[in-house]
Amino acid sequence: MLNIIVLNGPNLNLLGVREPEIYGDQSLEELNEKLQELADDLKVKLTFFQSNSEGEIIDFIQKNRNKADGMIINPGALTHYSYAIQDTIAAIKIPTVEVHLSNIHKREEFRKFSVIAPVCIGQINGLGYYGYAMALSFLADTLNNKEE
Amino acid sequence: MLNIIVLNGPNLNLLGVREPEIYGDQSLEELNEKLQELADDLKVKLTFFQSNSEGEIIDFIQKNRNKADGMIINPGALTHYSYAIQDTIAAIKIPTVEVHLSNIHKREEFRKFSVIAPVCIGQINGLGYYGYAMALSFLADTLNNKEE
Amino acid sequence: MLNIIVLNGPNLNLLGVREPEIYGDQSLEELNEKLQELADDLKVKLTFFQSNSEGEIIDFIQKNRNKADGMIINPGALTHYSYAIQDTIAAIKIPTVEVHLSNIHKREEFRKFSVIAPVCIGQINGLGYYGYAMALSFLADTLNNKEE
Amino acid sequence: MLNIIVLNGPNLNLLGVREPEIYGDQSLEELNEKLQELADDLKVKLTFFQSNSEGEIIDFIQKNRNKADGMIINPGALTHYSYAIQDTIAAIKIPTVEVHLSNIHKREEFRKFSVIAPVCIGQINGLGYYGYAMALSFLADTLNNKEE
Amino acid sequence: MLNIIVLNGPNLNLLGVREPEIYGDQSLEELNEKLQELADDLKVKLTFFQSNSEGEIIDFIQKNRNKADGMIINPGALTHYSYAIQDTIAAIKIPTVEVHLSNIHKREEFRKFSVIAPVCIGQINGLGYYGYAMALSFLADTLNNKEE
Amino acid sequence: MLNIIVLNGPNLNLLGVREPEIYGDQSLEELNEKLQELADDLKVKLTFFQSNSEGEIIDFIQKNRNKADGMIINPGALTHYSYAIQDTIAAIKIPTVEVHLSNIHKREEFRKFSVIAPVCIGQINGLGYYGYAMALSFLADTLNNKEE
Amino acid sequence: MLNIIVLNGPNLNLLGVREPEIYGDQSLEELNEKLQELADDLKVKLTFFQSNSEGEIIDFIQKNRNKADGMIINPGALTHYSYAIQDTIAAIKIPTVEVHLSNIHKREEFRKFSVIAPVCIGQINGLGYYGYAMALSFLADTLNNKEE
Amino acid sequence: MLNIIVLNGPNLNLLGVREPEIYGDQSLEELNEKLQELADDLKVKLTFFQSNSEGEIIDFIQKNRNKADGMIINPGALTHYSYAIQDTIAAIKIPTVEVHLSNIHKREEFRKFSVIAPVCIGQINGLGYYGYAMALSFLADTLNNKEE
Amino acid sequence: MLNIIVLNGPNLNLLGVREPEIYGDQSLEELNEKLQELADDLKVKLTFFQSNSEGEIIDFIQKNRNKADGMIINPGALTHYSYAIQDTIAAIKIPTVEVHLSNIHKREEFRKFSVIAPVCIGQINGLGYYGYAMALSFLADTLNNKEE
Amino acid sequence: MLNIIVLNGPNLNLLGVREPEIYGDQSLEELNEKLQELADDLKVKLTFFQSNSEGEIIDFIQKNRNKADGMIINPGALTHYSYAIQDTIAAIKIPTVEVHLSNIHKREEFRKFSVIAPVCIGQINGLGYYGYAMALSFLADTLNNKEE
Amino acid sequence: MLNIIVLNGPNLNLLGVREPEIYGDQSLEELNEKLQELADDLKVKLTFFQSNSEGEIIDFIQKNRNKADGMIINPGALTHYSYAIQDTIAAIKIPTVEVHLSNIHKREEFRKFSVIAPVCIGQINGLGYYGYAMALSFLADTLNNKEE
Amino acid sequence: MLNIIVLNGPNLNLLGVREPEIYGDQSLEELNEKLQELADDLKVKLTFFQSNSEGEIIDFIQKNRNKADGMIINPGALTHYSYAIQDTIAAIKIPTVEVHLSNIHKREEFRKFSVIAPVCIGQINGLGYYGYAMALSFLADTLNNKEE
Repeated sequence: MLNIIVLNGPNLNLLGVREPEIYGDQSLEELNEKLQELADDLKVKLTFFQSNSEGEIIDFIQKNRNKADGMIINPGALTHYSYAIQDTIAAIKIPTVEVHLSNIHKREEFRKFSVIAPVCIGQINGLGYYGYAMALSFLADTLNNKEE
Repeated sequence: MLNIIVLNGPNLNLLGVREPEIYGDQSLEELNEKLQELADDLKVKLTFFQSNSEGEIIDFIQKNRNKADGMIINPGALTHYSYAIQDTIAAIKIPTVEVHLSNIHKREEFRKFSVIAPVCIGQINGLGYYGYAMALSFLADTLNNKEE
Repeated sequence: MLNIIVLNGPNLNLLGVREPEIYGDQSLEELNEKLQELADDLKVKLTFFQSNSEGEIIDFIQKNRNKADGMIINPGALTHYSYAIQDTIAAIKIPTVEVHLSNIHKREEFRKFSVIAPVCIGQINGLGYYGYAMALSFLADTLNNKEE
Repeated sequence: MLNIIVLNGPNLNLLGVREPEIYGDQSLEELNEKLQELADDLKVKLTFFQSNSEGEIIDFIQKNRNKADGMIINPGALTHYSYAIQDTIAAIKIPTVEVHLSNIHKREEFRKFSVIAPVCIGQINGLGYYGYAMALSFLADTLNNKEE
Repeated sequence: MLNIIVLNGPNLNLLGVREPEIYGDQSLEELNEKLQELADDLKVKLTFFQSNSEGEIIDFIQKNRNKADGMIINPGALTHYSYAIQDTIAAIKIPTVEVHLSNIHKREEFRKFSVIAPVCIGQINGLGYYGYAMALSFLADTLNNKEE
Repeated sequence: MLNIIVLNGPNLNLLGVREPEIYGDQSLEELNEKLQELADDLKVKLTFFQSNSEGEIIDFIQKNRNKADGMIINPGALTHYSYAIQDTIAAIKIPTVEVHLSNIHKREEFRKFSVIAPVCIGQINGLGYYGYAMALSFLADTLNNKEE
Repeated sequence: MLNIIVLNGPNLNLLGVREPEIYGDQSLEELNEKLQELADDLKVKLTFFQSNSEGEIIDFIQKNRNKADGMIINPGALTHYSYAIQDTIAAIKIPTVEVHLSNIHKREEFRKFSVIAPVCIGQINGLGYYGYAMALSFLADTLNNKEE
Repeated sequence: MLNIIVLNGPNLNLLGVREPEIYGDQSLEELNEKLQELADDLKVKLTFFQSNSEGEIIDFIQKNRNKADGMIINPGALTHYSYAIQDTIAAIKIPTVEVHLSNIHKREEFRKFSVIAPVCIGQINGLGYYGYAMALSFLADTLNNKEE
Repeated sequence: MLNIIVLNGPNLNLLGVREPEIYGDQSLEELNEKLQELADDLKVKLTFFQSNSEGEIIDFIQKNRNKADGMIINPGALTHYSYAIQDTIAAIKIPTVEVHLSNIHKREEFRKFSVIAPVCIGQINGLGYYGYAMALSFLADTLNNKEE
Repeated sequence: MLNIIVLNGPNLNLLGVREPEIYGDQSLEELNEKLQELADDLKVKLTFFQSNSEGEIIDFIQKNRNKADGMIINPGALTHYSYAIQDTIAAIKIPTVEVHLSNIHKREEFRKFSVIAPVCIGQINGLGYYGYAMALSFLADTLNNKEE
Repeated sequence: MLNIIVLNGPNLNLLGVREPEIYGDQSLEELNEKLQELADDLKVKLTFFQSNSEGEIIDFIQKNRNKADGMIINPGALTHYSYAIQDTIAAIKIPTVEVHLSNIHKREEFRKFSVIAPVCIGQINGLGYYGYAMALSFLADTLNNKEE
Repeated sequence: MLNIIVLNGPNLNLLGVREPEIYGDQSLEELNEKLQELADDLKVKLTFFQSNSEGEIIDFIQKNRNKADGMIINPGALTHYSYAIQDTIAAIKIPTVEVHLSNIHKREEFRKFSVIAPVCIGQINGLGYYGYAMALSFLADTLNNKEE
């Protein structure tokens, strides 16, 4: 059974509360529940993690590097400067998809540039919850194909 | 029934031939066929268009602006400098998702910057065919919800 | 009798439809009609052309270069990157005035910079229809004075 | 009766003397006289002011802010760095048109950038005396329409 | 027999007319005739194409990609921004030499930078007609050597 | 009774020890005591927090977001790159004043730029302890006025 | 008795009139009166000066350099380019605090950069009238301590 | 007896696993053991610390600032943006040598720039384990000389 | 008899008082007296002017443009941003030498760049009083040679 | 008989040894011999010179400036920073063609920019030995035409 | 027996004389003697060379490329612009370590950037004489290991 | 008796021949003779040196560092990139004046920036021969005053 990490960075625990006109009014728990339902359908095990700390995020990825088959990451604002997380993903070599709820190209200049994306397979942004769901479907599909 | 444009820009007609290590070995026809199958499942009408010409792309979008409910666009290299296509999408106000087959953040500097994305709902890149399929599912789902 | 080209670039055929809070609610046809009336008063022949294609715009200017005495051009978004149109105007040496309906200095950074303006006599922006009318009066007046 | 300010900045009092190949051989007095004639036709009152001092220009605009209906401004070299005049025009909210005798896009890089234009309705450059006349006609026409 | 494309971009059809102090007074037809004579000597078949349209240039290259052994391209002003033509040449993998009539390093800053050159074998500029002739000799010579 | 957070970032616990010619010879404890005395006079409750960790700072702000009426923050070096703290303050919408002991405009270039200030009410720098005291008085005064 | 200059630059005489959503609806006279009351409490003499002219501001500072013990300056838009006022403050060596009514970090890019701040003791921005009051309290307090 | 800190930042605990073609196949434990042997020879006490968290690194340095005579630091990716660690090292004034296993000048642009190096004595990069050993020898030698 | 303007900009009236370690301890009056003595020897009439106001400097140059044969100018901080004074000197065409007391290349970055120098004959900096004397000798010598 | 200099800069004496995948496996001697054969056919005298020293290259050009009719120069890495060689070629006014063996547009950013090309007639790069041969043919042809 | 070049660039022959607060008071001869002693211990032959000339440095490296097993280079100021020395080291492929006596990250901006380091194994800076000794030990150790 | 070096860099031996419209028609020998006459009057010994080689210039300055009391240097194009000569002048601490015949601010951008000037006393440019004469007078005068 595939094991996929769902990792959310700083302030994503405020979902539903934080600027709902940008991020929607769904809480992270609700988002994760919907994702869990999809994972159940896909027969995929999900490991959820949220942290506001770059160091904890790196620790978590490192600890799970032998257990996980894929990763969905929304690094929050760390997207734009955490070369340390970039290094971690490059080191562990687990297929990773970067997701953003909002369209990062519609906002401040600094949000257009991701230091994480170059070490991921791809990036989805602006599609809200769908971004997570799509990343999950993509990983489930491509990783299952490899395994067979 | 929803009507969604699938618009591919310069050189995407070379898919399968062009640098397969970057873009995969599937032809644009094959990709479109798979997408059509998905559309049939989703009860969505697709209108395919590919052109190497910025002018023809703008003409096509303008002509279809009253018939289409959504658009999936892979503007190819025009992504990075066609402010004219940006203006067209901003003018017509049809919900649009930008798709790239390859991860534009892994390649040359100029490919990281999209002038089209700020006028789209979101952007998917690096996920190959899945990017198109996801954009289609997303549009079908959200547009149907609106219509109801 | 003076012959003056009125050339509009990408998306200007959407006038009246496209973001009316920026570009006004007058269609290009209505704008051209008003301009024709002024031309009749000034005893000037107008040749109208609109295209969404850089190549067609260049073709048109080249074909008319021996018939035209002056040109009014609103290159739309091509203003900001079409060095090819710059080369055409520099080559044909027909007195040209660049016009923009909106104030390009109030909008995104990229709209402040024109690659066309350095090969024109001058530039008018932000004055809506008046910009075209003024450019026409200016050309009619200065070209007639030369001819005499 | 409309009251319109005609404000010229540093060195424009040298018109006719200063680099006539760029600025023409007409003096500022002659230019103003021609403009006065046009104003008489349009039934508009003009208030002329020229100064080489940023401070005096700001003082003048502030003092006339309740008497004037519109303003034509050629800020000379202050165009490129006087954020203080920008602030004044933004504060008083009198409709203003920026005018330059020469084509600022044909000269040094620093002349392409205007800090004044973003707070004006529009900008005319390169058309010599006509720029002032057009700005006057534009203001007379649009302000009269508003008043009615 | 080798088949070599001679492709000229925007405004090169104005040769002889356009700024002869920069581009010489020879027309494109005359230039092509001289090149044809050289090709006859070298036993090489030439296919000439000129267009002012980026899209048509891409279409032409794509259509000829299986017939051509080499290409000589003078992309005109598109040299400096057509990432789409860059992609086409990278995709088709036909040995290509970029040619410019004038010395692009003696002119405006933007002309020093070519987005096409990185996907060509080499670049010749400033040598007028000789640039085309040399590119032809080079391709004839190196391609014949490969074939043997 | 108003509840105001006093949050100090990395290395501010070294106050009095760390480069006293820049930061003064008062320890953070002494500074906090003086601030507490002022708060007592103003009938304001203070919650002190210092951390060297971006993640802990974000956690702390999030946990106190429903208890606090205002915040005084000296983010230390995080001022210049912590877009994650920027996001937190933007999300919680508690009135915040940024304070720096030293004049950040007299030091290295990178210290002039704050990513936190745009989501605060204002910023005080260079006034040592007074900066904190002023921020406290300001918040006490304006928040009390609102409450009444 | 301490003598402190309160110097306001271009357009601050328009306070209350000018963009009240940014600068508040209090006039400069009212602001000065409130400041005078505080000064009376603090037993400090204030000398008020406002000018729209860089030259007059420099003249004023120079003339008062032997009479003044401290200075509160809000240079308005001159904040961002008046290296001449920077030189004056550096030359006279009177302790100076820079004040801005609005949060300069929330507005256009050019407003974030102060050429005056590096020669001041500190800077307060975004706190409206309080900024002036705090600067006054700070100067009164620190200068009195020195004198004793 | 000298006490020297050996501090490794994010992802250095993955040594041997992480991209061995760049970082070698030795684990951090093996590297530390070799370093301990050298320290034993030099009669130096080593205190090892590794963390993926900027905050923990700062905490550790602060806590050991009175016990340590020198520090060897490999800040990993934090090298390039942790102004907070820069501040800590500047504050504690313990002689520090920065070490990198790989040649940071052979890799991405962002890796060439260190915000830590300006507050260190020097920097060694590209020499693998030797860099640590050299830093240790250097500190042992120069600190012993000082003590005598 | 030659007539030469000696024009000093903002803050040069503070000479002797202002940062004497940079500008020396000689007052402007003393400097002018020494220059007058040299002028007497050279049989040259000097017209001295100092102002802290850009506008007054421009007014003064304009008023004297028909009386003066040459100009020595030390524009103070206006050197670095007064495009208006640049325009004045370009307009009047009186041979001008720019002088700075201190070496502008040894100080802040912004002081290295002069907007005045491109319209002068030359520039002398770092030689204190000698710079003025040399500029005077140069003008006297070259202008006298022309007159003969 | 025409006299043409063939000048090679730093490291070109290592040809055949140095990175043959970039520069080919032909030695400079072999290249020069082939060029000499072509020169014999063209009845042109060649003067060969190679040096690793900017100074010697300038000395050589200066000494030969009255004997040479044309120059072929491959300045090696000096291409990118030797403004001194730029000055020499501008001073001597001998028609010069710049040649590079490799395609400088396919390599590091700094290799795209030539400080020598703006003072040459043209530039050939990426064509290996052919570049030299073409430059020779071009110079022989155009210089002979002039002489006649 | 290993043969290692010790190459010092411009102004390093002034060691001991030149700014001793930056470079120490040891002469180059003394430094070389100490290095020779270490080399004797390590059974390594050293070849010393110092030159102020880029050309001579390149000549020397080229001449010794078949005799040397490794190189220690301190290129002095040439570190920052000699792309020609970069090319030489890339061409000869002898393992090279770059050394700087002072910490180049503590000084002017231009000293932080090395054009030589990307073609070396590594770089040591700020450790004075130790840098050379360490580079020697490193090369002796790693080259001997290879040879065995 | 004072001993002053007169050092001219690359291409200054071409004076009189090289672009006389920029550099005048006087040869370097004639210039030196005139300077020698002035030196005789001032009782100063001059040592002339010209070289096209950066290395020779550094060698010469180093060799004369104990014999010379001052230096006049025109580094030619090396002005703009020779950090090595900068280091030499900083190391020897002989008072130096930089001279340029032409006005470097009227020419290409790269000529405005001097890497030599920050380590000189001052710089004179645009005054032709007078620049050298003035530098000599300045050095003679100030050095004699010191000696007394």
